[in-house]
Amino acid sequence: MQPAAQRLQRYRAWMRDQGVDLALITHLPNIRYLANFSGSAGYLLVRPRRAYFVSDFRYREQAHQEVFPWIEVRIPREVLREVLRLLRPGRRIGLEADHTTLRFYRFLEGALTRRASRKLVPLSDQVLHLRAVKDEQEIARIRKAQEITDRIFQDVLNLVEPERMTELDLAAEMEYRMKKYGASGPSFPTIVASGTHTALPHAQPRLVKIARNAPLLLDFGCVYQGYASDMTRTVWIGSQVDPEFEKIYHIVNDARARAIEAARPGMSTADLDEVARAYIRKRGYGEAFGHSLGHGVGLEIHEAPWLAPRRGKRPEQFISRLQVGNVVTIEPGIYLPHLGGVRIEDLVVIRPDGAEVLTRSPRELIRL
Amino acid sequence: MQPAAQRLQRYRAWMRDQGVDLALITHLPNIRYLANFSGSAGYLLVRPRRAYFVSDFRYREQAHQEVFPWIEVRIPREVLREVLRLLRPGRRIGLEADHTTLRFYRFLEGALTRRASRKLVPLSDQVLHLRAVKDEQEIARIRKAQEITDRIFQDVLNLVEPERMTELDLAAEMEYRMKKYGASGPSFPTIVASGTHTALPHAQPRLVKIARNAPLLLDFGCVYQGYASDMTRTVWIGSQVDPEFEKIYHIVNDARARAIEAARPGMSTADLDEVARAYIRKRGYGEAFGHSLGHGVGLEIHEAPWLAPRRGKRPEQFISRLQVGNVVTIEPGIYLPHLGGVRIEDLVVIRPDGAEVLTRSPRELIRL
Repeated sequence: MQPAAQRLQRYRAWMRDQGVDLALITHLPNIRYLANFSGSAGYLLVRPRRAYFVSDFRYREQAHQEVFPWIEVRIPREVLREVLRLLRPGRRIGLEADHTTLRFYRFLEGALTRRASRKLVPLSDQVLHLRAVKDEQEIARIRKAQEITDRIFQDVLNLVEPERMTELDLAAEMEYRMKKYGASGPSFPTIVASGTHTALPHAQPRLVKIARNAPLLLDFGCVYQGYASDMTRTVWIGSQVDPEFEKIYHIVNDARARAIEAARPGMSTADLDEVARAYIRKRGYGEAFGHSLGHGVGLEIHEAPWLAPRRGKRPEQFISRLQVGNVVTIEPGIYLPHLGGVRIEDLVVIRPDGAEVLTRSPRELIRL
Repeated sequence: MQPAAQRLQRYRAWMRDQGVDLALITHLPNIRYLANFSGSAGYLLVRPRRAYFVSDFRYREQAHQEVFPWIEVRIPREVLREVLRLLRPGRRIGLEADHTTLRFYRFLEGALTRRASRKLVPLSDQVLHLRAVKDEQEIARIRKAQEITDRIFQDVLNLVEPERMTELDLAAEMEYRMKKYGASGPSFPTIVASGTHTALPHAQPRLVKIARNAPLLLDFGCVYQGYASDMTRTVWIGSQVDPEFEKIYHIVNDARARAIEAARPGMSTADLDEVARAYIRKRGYGEAFGHSLGHGVGLEIHEAPWLAPRRGKRPEQFISRLQVGNVVTIEPGIYLPHLGGVRIEDLVVIRPDGAEVLTRSPRELIRL
């Protein structure tokens, strides 16, 4: 069986464990993973022996072209009526608890559970767990997305014109190149932050000139054939690097290298986070590293596994041990409001013997 | 009272009608509208006399800068615990039925309704209804977004190199200019479709050269200070226009003009859809106009009101009559698989005496 066909079989095995005989998948990245449909409207219904993809006339051609041949495509005149019809044989019908709205749940409840023998069952996001382990075709797409990202970073080094270009100008140049180099677009809004703005982990590019004698932080990625990349580099604009900046740069970079060195299958994700966090804490900057170490990357830019301290907020989605085939970011940072921030982020694949680094851009401190 | 302050008062008046004494707003565009917060994580709690915005440490600075002064900002260590604490005084607690996941609903149910006197009430999306009527500051932002869009279309007319440039190349050029001209980015993924690909209303740009002696369809828009624009133009590449293409072009363009001419406050949205649809139907292309006439545009690219035939699928969100201050697209189309499609889309504001057209790009058939 080809790897893509195993996805549905694995999901069905899990359905059996949950005691559901029908599952309704509504989250589009999950539909893309299980059914290969890349459009933006549709429902996937999984039964023990059959599976159906239901969408509307706008996606007729695309659905027939894309959807895996072992899933039956239905393009009815009334989509919801057809979905209900296909749900009726179910006795215990699973719904994606994280992706079903209260309104849709109430609608299904009204339409389906008048018969007492039929029950709606909120399910955890098992497809997200399956998606966390990538096959080689998926890794190849992420690798290609990261190659485009690296190429753009190389371009940027030649492009930046401090005191003339704005943060938005540079972000425009970067996103422009994504499509030119064959990506479908950014995997998230490109972050270009200059000066003390680098201290905001979620900075948005402003109509503000890139400053000289200050840090410049770039956090960006693109989507190639549905799969995302993600990278951060922080450079210094000017020949004289601020000594405190240089100091935190090296701490962050060493924390990154140590985490990558430590990563291996079977290791707890919280322990990996702690490798970088402890290193930064011991050097006196523990309070200045306010986010988690990293996250999975794939059909979504943020997905399982999450590399975070032990007190995760959604334990049921928190995959506790690294597995072969995980693709994760390693992105420690130190943020000092008076000076700015440093974040250095690589993308790695977990292999049997450790982490393979996909990111090719340099990590040493660059002065521009 | 300034218009922005009235938003919350209007929402509270509606809450009283629904008999809820506390509402939890989780949909980010709704939070932005009521509270002015533009970040990507937070909760808004509305009580009859007070309102609270709760977010995490990443948004501390941004929340204090942006959130309207009549709303209290809370940045607790544990966000969900604080939200629960603020919800506890509620007796009938309203939740946004369209934007609350089944998981979050179950979580709140478990945490809050052990006390029998407290009840969770699914609410329809009233903020969406309020958002449908724009004030002049909102219209000014949409106008600016549309100006950038028009400017880019003008650029495109000089840029297109058929048989050399791909659809993706052109999309890259267009999105690049959005940021260069001061927008924060595209309001949706830019559609560039050449040849028979124009017959797919949701075409994605491909790594395929723009064809000569064929139609080229551009559907795009950008975001300026949070507000979206949206425009479609279809041009002919080559000097000899296909006669059938020319015929459907004029039908679509006349349908557009008639709908804009007919639009006025108080008119049913379905009747406005029918103005364009009947015109196209009478000329024999009724089956080839498979989507609705238009949609509202604002903080989201698709919002209320919807200009659709009478059988809307979500009647509670279906605003049935045009109101002064609505901003809507008028975008009839005819799609012929053997030849391609024509769609022409303008953005208009509903004024007391009719529709004001924000789109400045030419509507006559352009040959390139």
